[in-house]
Amino acid sequence: MEQNFLEKFMNPHTFAFYGANENIPYNMGAFQLLTLIDNGFKGKIYPIHPKLETIFGIKAYKSINDVPGKVDLAEIVVSKKHIPNILKELGENGVRNVILVTAGFREMDNNTASNELKEIASKYDLNILGPNCIGILNTHAKYSTDPNEECILNTTVQTYSLPAGNVSIASQSGTFVSHTFAILKERNLLLNKTLSLGNEAIIDLCDCLEYFETDPYTDVIMLYIEEIKRGRLFFELAKRISPKKPIIVLYVGGTEGGAKAVKSHTGSLAGNDEVYDAVFKQTGIIRTHTVEEFFDTAMIFSHLVPLGIIPKGKRIMIMTNSGGPGATMADRISRKGLELPFYSEEIKKKIDKFLVPTAQSSNPLDFTFSLNPVDFFIKVPRIIARSGEYDAMVVYGAYGDQFFNFQSIGNDFLEKPKPHEIIMQWREMSEASVVDAQKIVKKYKFPIIFVNLWGYNDSMFRHLNENLFPTYQTPHRCVDALFNLIKYGEFLKKKGMSSEI
Amino acid sequence: MEQNFLEKFMNPHTFAFYGANENIPYNMGAFQLLTLIDNGFKGKIYPIHPKLETIFGIKAYKSINDVPGKVDLAEIVVSKKHIPNILKELGENGVRNVILVTAGFREMDNNTASNELKEIASKYDLNILGPNCIGILNTHAKYSTDPNEECILNTTVQTYSLPAGNVSIASQSGTFVSHTFAILKERNLLLNKTLSLGNEAIIDLCDCLEYFETDPYTDVIMLYIEEIKRGRLFFELAKRISPKKPIIVLYVGGTEGGAKAVKSHTGSLAGNDEVYDAVFKQTGIIRTHTVEEFFDTAMIFSHLVPLGIIPKGKRIMIMTNSGGPGATMADRISRKGLELPFYSEEIKKKIDKFLVPTAQSSNPLDFTFSLNPVDFFIKVPRIIARSGEYDAMVVYGAYGDQFFNFQSIGNDFLEKPKPHEIIMQWREMSEASVVDAQKIVKKYKFPIIFVNLWGYNDSMFRHLNENLFPTYQTPHRCVDALFNLIKYGEFLKKKGMSSEI
Repeated sequence: MEQNFLEKFMNPHTFAFYGANENIPYNMGAFQLLTLIDNGFKGKIYPIHPKLETIFGIKAYKSINDVPGKVDLAEIVVSKKHIPNILKELGENGVRNVILVTAGFREMDNNTASNELKEIASKYDLNILGPNCIGILNTHAKYSTDPNEECILNTTVQTYSLPAGNVSIASQSGTFVSHTFAILKERNLLLNKTLSLGNEAIIDLCDCLEYFETDPYTDVIMLYIEEIKRGRLFFELAKRISPKKPIIVLYVGGTEGGAKAVKSHTGSLAGNDEVYDAVFKQTGIIRTHTVEEFFDTAMIFSHLVPLGIIPKGKRIMIMTNSGGPGATMADRISRKGLELPFYSEEIKKKIDKFLVPTAQSSNPLDFTFSLNPVDFFIKVPRIIARSGEYDAMVVYGAYGDQFFNFQSIGNDFLEKPKPHEIIMQWREMSEASVVDAQKIVKKYKFPIIFVNLWGYNDSMFRHLNENLFPTYQTPHRCVDALFNLIKYGEFLKKKGMSSEI
Repeated sequence: MEQNFLEKFMNPHTFAFYGANENIPYNMGAFQLLTLIDNGFKGKIYPIHPKLETIFGIKAYKSINDVPGKVDLAEIVVSKKHIPNILKELGENGVRNVILVTAGFREMDNNTASNELKEIASKYDLNILGPNCIGILNTHAKYSTDPNEECILNTTVQTYSLPAGNVSIASQSGTFVSHTFAILKERNLLLNKTLSLGNEAIIDLCDCLEYFETDPYTDVIMLYIEEIKRGRLFFELAKRISPKKPIIVLYVGGTEGGAKAVKSHTGSLAGNDEVYDAVFKQTGIIRTHTVEEFFDTAMIFSHLVPLGIIPKGKRIMIMTNSGGPGATMADRISRKGLELPFYSEEIKKKIDKFLVPTAQSSNPLDFTFSLNPVDFFIKVPRIIARSGEYDAMVVYGAYGDQFFNFQSIGNDFLEKPKPHEIIMQWREMSEASVVDAQKIVKKYKFPIIFVNLWGYNDSMFRHLNENLFPTYQTPHRCVDALFNLIKYGEFLKKKGMSSEI
């Protein structure tokens, strides 16, 4: 099979950079070159600058003509008037892959500039990303001839400090694949590749879909969409890809306000919301409606879909140690059209053995105040998972270090040897139980999703998220993400595909 | 005017505590007593325990009979069977205010126990909060005869480490007024008082509404509702109070799943969603639908309503330095039925002076890459605010220290004297501009709301939030919160009330 052209783009051994000096933060190019270096790109970098001898300690070159050897990828952040000449020079030097950050081509109703760009690209067979884009990220970049050698390639403006993941994003907004990296960290949403598409003069959403389809590191595809240019092809690609790799979308062009904004952002004419919605539904694309839901959904998909853990129906069990979050999850589950059946008498008998007198043996199953991690994380979940009476479970009541957020006197007390030891024992037991509980998820292919109101600051939130348990800060976000996974399961079922891919 | 009975409840000089030992975390009472101490309650505390001499270093008493002097408030966390005797003893000793944490009365279909409770309460004229509640918080507690002496009274299980605020919560879930304290911190949502109502054997939502109405420290009222018991009174109170103090609600009892969960949580029969919704609409209550929206809405209200800054219409201006967030806000604004008019030629002329060639002078107004804080935070916003063409503005593009989240090499570079100085200058200028920009908000009573994708970790997010600019992590949450404030403004208008209260 022929290699997708973006594969070379994403794995450059040599990188030329136009438009950086050292004026942080006022020079955009400086910001981006420093990001590339900071993220540990291990290929060769050639800054191109008319005057400077070095930039960030790296030898600079006056022109691409002076650079020794072949250049695989060039990033350009200079003012618009220089672009045609640079592109020609690149073309003449055999450079084929270009990230064009510079803005002002299409979004300023300046089709002349945009057309000139396309002509040059066509003449030299250039793959141009942008213009008006923020660059790319690849957490699995191959920077040498040894395919086992990897590094992070990040040409955006924000350092991505997480391990390599399986989620790839193509975005018509650069902000959503740079300024969001901190949110992704909080949500343990691990990225594989991102592309900021800008005005899509050459490379567009469809190219990215085709690339992600073939990329072995991509399990989940995310698209931030303002406009789809090649509608027919997009439809065909999405239909073909989504049963193999889920596609999660945030689309903002379908309202009057959204459409006007899109027009001034990228010069595109946005489409009708109903038409787009129909395309998403028919192709099995998961449409989300807020930035929170967009990322929350990707997180649960990235954890569970690669393991084939996709709910086969919509019967949900709620387990909690607190009434309010239980009721809140129940309300949301009903609003989403999911089901909350009570368990059978047979199961009830088994479960009741683990409950204190104030507990409520129902759905929600409310443990009330109980700090026995083995019962809570392992014994009762195992009964529920193996019962076959449920398709997924949502849980409130896993706390970590933030549960004991005492300050002065309370902190002094907890630091005494005895209380410290008891707390540490309890925490260790909880964390070990969570690790053990993964077996239940895997054996029964039974999704268990948590809510923890402390969020990323809490040790248990992070621990759960790192151990096969998607975890959210609020009941609604948990249920909404699970709902989207159930929708995906229904789509697969309708397609006659096993959800165990 | 007669003092509301909850005023004494919330401001005890002497506090008796039943059911604590030092077994953290397994003893609930221990947890709560330690929280009280840790939060710096300055009144007198009398732990009651049959055996222990001291608890957390405080002298314990065998019985309430041994306690010297009068006790203003008692909290009880012992097993159910002891409750009737303790209540009688308290009653006989003239203690009238009781927080009953112990569960197992009403939610276990044990109406006998519940009735016994009510009989004792009636006989001794006891104000009982609960049973099955988590306690209270008062950040303005008067613990002595000197009304200027204040401390924090916090009888829940989570330390509240924020300054005193103006938002009071009555909640039928203890979790939402304890485990949420960390979320509130992240959102700079400053609390005044919280009450966990539990099963509402005696004190209920209506009592809290009446109390908050008279409480000079409460500007914004939040209610987490599973069921409203005294419907007629609630309706009258809400109608009377909401024009003076906005009431924000999260109601979860109105679906099949929610209703079943509520029944097992507090033993209540939940109501019909449409009926509740009609009550909320008719009384001007702001209904929210997720935990995020509940707290997000309270935050914007708590910042702006006390200053009379409430939009008089729904014409929204979007200002951004990045197309994607601008388009996303525009899409959400349209979906919410708000308006995004373009500014007049006259205003355009004034604004265009501050824009670079790549900028888009439209709505969204897209500055593109620009780091001039004076233009961005002051000059352009002032033109928009004074134009009279808009009722509110949402903004993306205020970054703080997290924007420069470099690690190794990048960090080393930024720590060099020159870049460090430039960055610090830029940050100081940004922060000073934000402080200055408050004058615009106050002078024109013009709400300006920010989005910052880094959230609470970012210095600018915190700085904005502390300076009259409600700030949210995502475009949708920003627009949704503003929408609720606009709805409140419309309600006031309909009532014929000035929104400048």
